[in-house]
Amino acid sequence: MPHGHRQGHRMGSKYPPSMRGCLPLWTLVLEVALIVIFFFFTSSDTSSQDPKKLMGNFRVLQDVTIMVALGFGFLNSSLRRYGWSSVAFNLFLLALGVQWAVLMDGFLERPFRKKVVIKLSSIKLATMSAMSVVISAGAVLGKANLLQLTLMTLVEVTVFVTMRMIDRQYLSMDDHVSMMHIHVFATYFGLMVAWFLSRCLNERVTEEKNQTAKSSSLFTMLGTLFLWIFWPSFNSALLDIPKERKNAVFNTYYALAASAVTAISVSALTHPQGKINMTHIHNAVLAGGVAVGPSCHLIASPWLAMLLGFMAGLISIWGALCLPEYFNHVLGIHDTCGVHYTFGFPGLLGGIAYILLIIYEVSWTKQSMIGYQLFIGIGTLSLAMASGLIAGVLTGLVLNLKICKGPHAAKYFDDQVFWEFPHLAIGF
Amino acid sequence: MPHGHRQGHRMGSKYPPSMRGCLPLWTLVLEVALIVIFFFFTSSDTSSQDPKKLMGNFRVLQDVTIMVALGFGFLNSSLRRYGWSSVAFNLFLLALGVQWAVLMDGFLERPFRKKVVIKLSSIKLATMSAMSVVISAGAVLGKANLLQLTLMTLVEVTVFVTMRMIDRQYLSMDDHVSMMHIHVFATYFGLMVAWFLSRCLNERVTEEKNQTAKSSSLFTMLGTLFLWIFWPSFNSALLDIPKERKNAVFNTYYALAASAVTAISVSALTHPQGKINMTHIHNAVLAGGVAVGPSCHLIASPWLAMLLGFMAGLISIWGALCLPEYFNHVLGIHDTCGVHYTFGFPGLLGGIAYILLIIYEVSWTKQSMIGYQLFIGIGTLSLAMASGLIAGVLTGLVLNLKICKGPHAAKYFDDQVFWEFPHLAIGF
Amino acid sequence: MPHGHRQGHRMGSKYPPSMRGCLPLWTLVLEVALIVIFFFFTSSDTSSQDPKKLMGNFRVLQDVTIMVALGFGFLNSSLRRYGWSSVAFNLFLLALGVQWAVLMDGFLERPFRKKVVIKLSSIKLATMSAMSVVISAGAVLGKANLLQLTLMTLVEVTVFVTMRMIDRQYLSMDDHVSMMHIHVFATYFGLMVAWFLSRCLNERVTEEKNQTAKSSSLFTMLGTLFLWIFWPSFNSALLDIPKERKNAVFNTYYALAASAVTAISVSALTHPQGKINMTHIHNAVLAGGVAVGPSCHLIASPWLAMLLGFMAGLISIWGALCLPEYFNHVLGIHDTCGVHYTFGFPGLLGGIAYILLIIYEVSWTKQSMIGYQLFIGIGTLSLAMASGLIAGVLTGLVLNLKICKGPHAAKYFDDQVFWEFPHLAIGF
Repeated sequence: MPHGHRQGHRMGSKYPPSMRGCLPLWTLVLEVALIVIFFFFTSSDTSSQDPKKLMGNFRVLQDVTIMVALGFGFLNSSLRRYGWSSVAFNLFLLALGVQWAVLMDGFLERPFRKKVVIKLSSIKLATMSAMSVVISAGAVLGKANLLQLTLMTLVEVTVFVTMRMIDRQYLSMDDHVSMMHIHVFATYFGLMVAWFLSRCLNERVTEEKNQTAKSSSLFTMLGTLFLWIFWPSFNSALLDIPKERKNAVFNTYYALAASAVTAISVSALTHPQGKINMTHIHNAVLAGGVAVGPSCHLIASPWLAMLLGFMAGLISIWGALCLPEYFNHVLGIHDTCGVHYTFGFPGLLGGIAYILLIIYEVSWTKQSMIGYQLFIGIGTLSLAMASGLIAGVLTGLVLNLKICKGPHAAKYFDDQVFWEFPHLAIGF
Repeated sequence: MPHGHRQGHRMGSKYPPSMRGCLPLWTLVLEVALIVIFFFFTSSDTSSQDPKKLMGNFRVLQDVTIMVALGFGFLNSSLRRYGWSSVAFNLFLLALGVQWAVLMDGFLERPFRKKVVIKLSSIKLATMSAMSVVISAGAVLGKANLLQLTLMTLVEVTVFVTMRMIDRQYLSMDDHVSMMHIHVFATYFGLMVAWFLSRCLNERVTEEKNQTAKSSSLFTMLGTLFLWIFWPSFNSALLDIPKERKNAVFNTYYALAASAVTAISVSALTHPQGKINMTHIHNAVLAGGVAVGPSCHLIASPWLAMLLGFMAGLISIWGALCLPEYFNHVLGIHDTCGVHYTFGFPGLLGGIAYILLIIYEVSWTKQSMIGYQLFIGIGTLSLAMASGLIAGVLTGLVLNLKICKGPHAAKYFDDQVFWEFPHLAIGF
Repeated sequence: MPHGHRQGHRMGSKYPPSMRGCLPLWTLVLEVALIVIFFFFTSSDTSSQDPKKLMGNFRVLQDVTIMVALGFGFLNSSLRRYGWSSVAFNLFLLALGVQWAVLMDGFLERPFRKKVVIKLSSIKLATMSAMSVVISAGAVLGKANLLQLTLMTLVEVTVFVTMRMIDRQYLSMDDHVSMMHIHVFATYFGLMVAWFLSRCLNERVTEEKNQTAKSSSLFTMLGTLFLWIFWPSFNSALLDIPKERKNAVFNTYYALAASAVTAISVSALTHPQGKINMTHIHNAVLAGGVAVGPSCHLIASPWLAMLLGFMAGLISIWGALCLPEYFNHVLGIHDTCGVHYTFGFPGLLGGIAYILLIIYEVSWTKQSMIGYQLFIGIGTLSLAMASGLIAGVLTGLVLNLKICKGPHAAKYFDDQVFWEFPHLAIGF
């Protein structure tokens, strides 16, 4: 141990002391500040709750935590030299995001109370809000240091919670649906931040470091499988009516099954030798769950969910084939983990499917409402996209300031900037 | 990304374009056909269900999905050059198998209805039926392409669901017990298919590629542990009476504990230097759960479950030591992941234990029934074995047809036939 | 397979046949003995239980099993040449410990019954008791063979269950709190055993073999994340009152979030270049859950739990920085996985926090009780520590006997002593 320590010391000196001093102190101060805020402004829930419902909430909280900590943590771990940072930073973002989201949720609740009352369902909600940060981090990963990610977390959670409050208060939108717009919001937020951070990216360096390693790919597959398995829990987490809950579980399961089969087939179909691309699989098998999200409690027969999953798989693979070229070279946005086609496109597809489904349903009952429903549906979806884009641009501007001491572009995607290695071997 | 793409292109051309065009199109067409069938022949369950029972069913479904997707996915990932295919093809088989099994279950139900009504418990059942495919795939893995595996899935699920229908309708067999014969059925199905595919297997190539890598072994251990932890859920999934359910969980847990201790001890005992063989561990720690399956709800005291676990561990290790030599050289059946001694032998042991237990119980109450019970017990077990063998032979014949364009024997156990690699490194 | 077998044979002969014959036979005999004891002295629970409570107990049992089998299994897998042993021996210890703990729990229960009645909650309790062995094994790992670990399991579980019985009977201590002292007990037990086994440890060899590999570190992270996610389940497992249960889940979650943020920040803060040490992360993110354990059902507002988590993170990192040097060189205790600062210090902090909290609460209601509460609180904590130390010394003495044929110090931390390798490659 002491030997390794000394070695890390010597090695480290070759790298710029980019975050020396500044970063860790700030996050520590932030943690202390959070404890003080919790001390003054929160109180625990003292109402006696139904024990059955309590355990139900606890189970869902556990499932969502598994998704965020294990699923997303390992989903992004396939970068050759960046596996450690992906998993550990992901846990950091989750732990920080949950604490912040509970506070934000409480402060923005109406009617405003002097003290925020924290229930088990608040933590569930906060974990889901924190997921927005983890999704965005997929686009930014490897290009930001811990201080930048911390700032991003604070801004993104605040904006996301505010957006959901507006949905609820002024557009009288369902809690479940506004949460399902998380994918669209987080994607465009992450892409905008990535745009600012990938300005001076050297293409050659990126490609060399961006490679996936064989064993890491199995870790990524592990993350994908965790997300695949627990996605029905996520999509039904905010639904209280048993029938809607059942429908949500059902349809999510079918959409995921259809998109898994589609993704593997199409990935082979688009390759000249019929070979499958592992990265496609990681991204596209989840597309079905994303796409069916907003409408999963309304769909009455499985074929519709399967159709959505099928289309989501197609769109996701299409995105993975065509987008990177265009985005990297023309726009200069480097999307590390392909967030745009994993969550962005399927999320948009899901939003549109929800609007169509609502209009179809309303057209059978009260035709006069169509216009209003159309307005609300398009409104919330655009709000999610717009707030993601605008907040992303602002955050990107802030993160690019010299004060953040971001890592030099040549050090992007490199665990060594952040981690003390006990020995010199970098790869394996 | 584009660089890697081009490279994969160049590399791929060295390999025979075995599945070019044909394969992915077929699976895509199949998925579309499934959506159309679901559109015409299924309807969702509209009855208002007890929310408590609903969540219980959902939890069990989740546990079984974890077992199939994560457990079996990683259990077979220890092959040195075949880790990617094992995990990804496993997910493909699960996603496809579930969709097909739900349809088959519905069509074969009596009284026959015009539209299949899909409940949450149908998906649970379908996932368990899909497990038969994943078990068989353990014997076939590395020797079949995706089209062959797809065909195998369709045939195996159909035969398995039909077999269970016959058990229920004509032999008035318990649903739980007939499901527990899945191990025997799937093993002999898989072995027969493997027999046809391993005809022209070059021994030297196999051995070199069949090696396990150190880090993959940890992935396999991960799969084993997932199966170990969730096996009690699987064995109690179809039991509704709380007392039986409790017994099942209990006894499975004890049998697994006993077989884990036995497996590790015996593996060391049979080695001249007292060393443990990792492959033995992967296989034998699960044997207890398999063996206790059919009788787990009947066993009244833990010692019997432990005894079964103990014997299963012994049999499984004995199989792993003696069988491969004989099967590989004399019969020419190459069992990639040792399905025969992991699931086959312990499954047979479990079937026999169930028959003995039923006879013992009946002999105390109504002695006249012994003959009938003996007939039923032996009947279902033989049915499982026979239908597995026959269906396996037929499937093997079909898969060997030129139309399937199976991979050349020299390319067996090689990820490179199926996957586009972003860089040239094959091993790690 | 046969080829690999022969090769392992040749290779193995270079190593001392330390456990030839003796070890595996003993563990097999032990397993048979356990079955016989279960046959004569136990009976299954025949009372009809509430199915809802049954499933609740089953879920908690499953969560705890995940923690012990997956969490602890992979937490200790980061040693470069010792990954296989860590995970597989961990499963062995769990399977053996559970069987033994159920018996011990039953025999020590008052009023004494002729036959031990085993309930689902007994297995839950036994799994938690078996956790003590797995924690201690973290300090001993790499320095003991399977026979030594088996002996350790039997002694440690017996002492731990006895200690809990004394807490319950003579100090009328809460079941939950006395279980939470498991961390302190297991740490000092493990350290004492490690002290005896690391006598003749060659420093240079240790350091070389003690290194962590990159991909193993991700496995360790996997273990850490499993523990992180399921820790709230563990801390609330023995609480029956819904309100206390809710508080426990709540506070554990907050403490874990705070300690995760703190650990990552402080680890970077203490490094001259602001780099994070992966080993610190593995250890310190869990400290919050350990520290909040004994008092988690009493804490009324989240800030207190967060403060405990914050302090636990600080203490844990401080320990990781300062202790190894001192313990290794001065005392000669080699703590393989840093059990002392992962579980020992935070456990002590938690014990002290519980005493302070109880005194604070009592001082508001009945001031006359303060002295008594102080005595009970300090008494149980010291009892845990003392019994750990004494039992550890005795066990260490026994394990050092020639009869155990422990591995030679030069072979410490080496998978090759215990495992048959199919090929020669040791590292990766």
